[in-house]
Amino acid sequence: MKKIALAVHGGAGTILKSRMTMELENEYRSGLRAALEAGWTILQRGGMSLDATEAAVVELENNPLFNAGRGAVFTHDGRNEMDASIMDGATRNAGAVAFVRNVKNPIKLARLVMEQTEHILLAGAGANEFAREMNVESATDEYFFTDFRYQQLLEARRQHKIQLDHTADEPELIEESESPKTKSQIPNPKSQIGTVGAVACDVRGNLAAATSTGGMTNKKYGRVGDTPLVGAGTYADNNTCAVSCTGHGEFFMLAVAAYDVAARMKYKNSGLIEAALETVDYLRDIGGEGGLIAVDARGNVALPFNSEGMYRGFVNSDGEIIVEIYR
Amino acid sequence: MKKIALAVHGGAGTILKSRMTMELENEYRSGLRAALEAGWTILQRGGMSLDATEAAVVELENNPLFNAGRGAVFTHDGRNEMDASIMDGATRNAGAVAFVRNVKNPIKLARLVMEQTEHILLAGAGANEFAREMNVESATDEYFFTDFRYQQLLEARRQHKIQLDHTADEPELIEESESPKTKSQIPNPKSQIGTVGAVACDVRGNLAAATSTGGMTNKKYGRVGDTPLVGAGTYADNNTCAVSCTGHGEFFMLAVAAYDVAARMKYKNSGLIEAALETVDYLRDIGGEGGLIAVDARGNVALPFNSEGMYRGFVNSDGEIIVEIYR
Repeated sequence: MKKIALAVHGGAGTILKSRMTMELENEYRSGLRAALEAGWTILQRGGMSLDATEAAVVELENNPLFNAGRGAVFTHDGRNEMDASIMDGATRNAGAVAFVRNVKNPIKLARLVMEQTEHILLAGAGANEFAREMNVESATDEYFFTDFRYQQLLEARRQHKIQLDHTADEPELIEESESPKTKSQIPNPKSQIGTVGAVACDVRGNLAAATSTGGMTNKKYGRVGDTPLVGAGTYADNNTCAVSCTGHGEFFMLAVAAYDVAARMKYKNSGLIEAALETVDYLRDIGGEGGLIAVDARGNVALPFNSEGMYRGFVNSDGEIIVEIYR
Repeated sequence: MKKIALAVHGGAGTILKSRMTMELENEYRSGLRAALEAGWTILQRGGMSLDATEAAVVELENNPLFNAGRGAVFTHDGRNEMDASIMDGATRNAGAVAFVRNVKNPIKLARLVMEQTEHILLAGAGANEFAREMNVESATDEYFFTDFRYQQLLEARRQHKIQLDHTADEPELIEESESPKTKSQIPNPKSQIGTVGAVACDVRGNLAAATSTGGMTNKKYGRVGDTPLVGAGTYADNNTCAVSCTGHGEFFMLAVAAYDVAARMKYKNSGLIEAALETVDYLRDIGGEGGLIAVDARGNVALPFNSEGMYRGFVNSDGEIIVEIYR
């Protein structure tokens, strides 16, 4: 019987303690704790890592504080479009969805793509059609409406800015690309980065990773980030590790960040913690703010980030839940 | 001054010599040759690898024989939806589009995403809106209509099958997923696999890769394959290699195939040819039929594939154009 392990994240970025109230901080902490409890219960009774990561992400999707599921931010035209992906380290099969609307738990739909189709990534209207055929639980626009997120959209629209991420009360905004510019000229995002994720190792040593997001406030042009992309936002292989990323998605895509951790273990024989740190350092070097969570089949856990903070938590070897926000 | 290098592909799969007429074979060969000439002219006069790969792919997109641009296959609802991506090995920046319609050369739009936005991947209606704002050359439905492709759709619909790829006159079809099944139960695709791509090294040792496709005949649900995904279908980094893939996209996504070649060079110190072969062998092991083309900054070229054939070509060290189809 292998050592079980579980870690979750709820986004990374500049999380200034000075701007955080004790009450809000406690809400974030209890949200992360609830996700860990949901996953850990499954792992402890001998359940699958795939079920544990899905259950943990569902908890975070159902919590309006995090930018995923219910708490998804608004696009430019006032919609909630969500992305999610899940990967099974035992079969190295994966499923993902992009731009789904009115689906209560996008991570469940991603899993159905993995298990019920021959595809990996379904997007837009097609993904919504698949959701209807699969009878996944839907939710109304009102369910996804949170006044806090809507005020963020109005503010971003007013300033003609897109917002990479949020929840800090005065996040810096990224200028909207009215005057075209290359990615290298983008100011570093200083607000929080909204994604949730979970990674797990079960008693059989099977690994899994799951990631879900509500994208960027005021986003246009059908931008796809790293969350629904196998290798960028999510990756799992029993022989190396399971990884879920959170950060400025474009840089995680260019770095192929989640698979990069696995490749360092596979081809350079790095350990999990060393490989995860090296990938996050590389991301910092190219301007990619954020972090990741990772586990290996020995039950090791890594939670490195290069931003000011990352909502994160894991269960230690004594079965104790540890939740952290700042460095 | 570095050794310049260029390679192109026009898809891989079962290309049975017995079913190929001499006339058709000559048309394929001259299409590949025209693409190589377009790219080589640019490289020879000291131009950028990025321009050379774009020019080569534009030639293939304009040729109705290949499943990209003009020759794009039809989706289930009789539309032409195209994907493309391009990556610059010098800056490690990239751009990509998915599901674009009525854009004459999707590879040009992918490059505009790279150079004119802070994003990497734009999809669907948003990508089309971006195309209009950028004033890229559009083309009518008639431009994309080829009777050959339309007959393929009618045949696929009649048989309730999706067709991964085509151009062989009697390709085996993949069963449509009416009864759900996992990817491991999918019969191996035995028809041709429709993608085009180019990789190049210019006189400054800068690498670039570009890939474009018209997707799968009769596809539904907004399926996204490997072509628009950095790391899966396309990757370029001056420190390692430039790679463009063609094959059963789902497996190339799970293998993170294009980046896997680079990772083997970076972390295991494999040479280009060894790394490219190992990735294609790994793909074969997991059931992923297809191949890839790759160059490094020394001007080495690799064109491995695990299928019966791959439309491919390169320019050798004497400046001679070599075009091949079969093993």
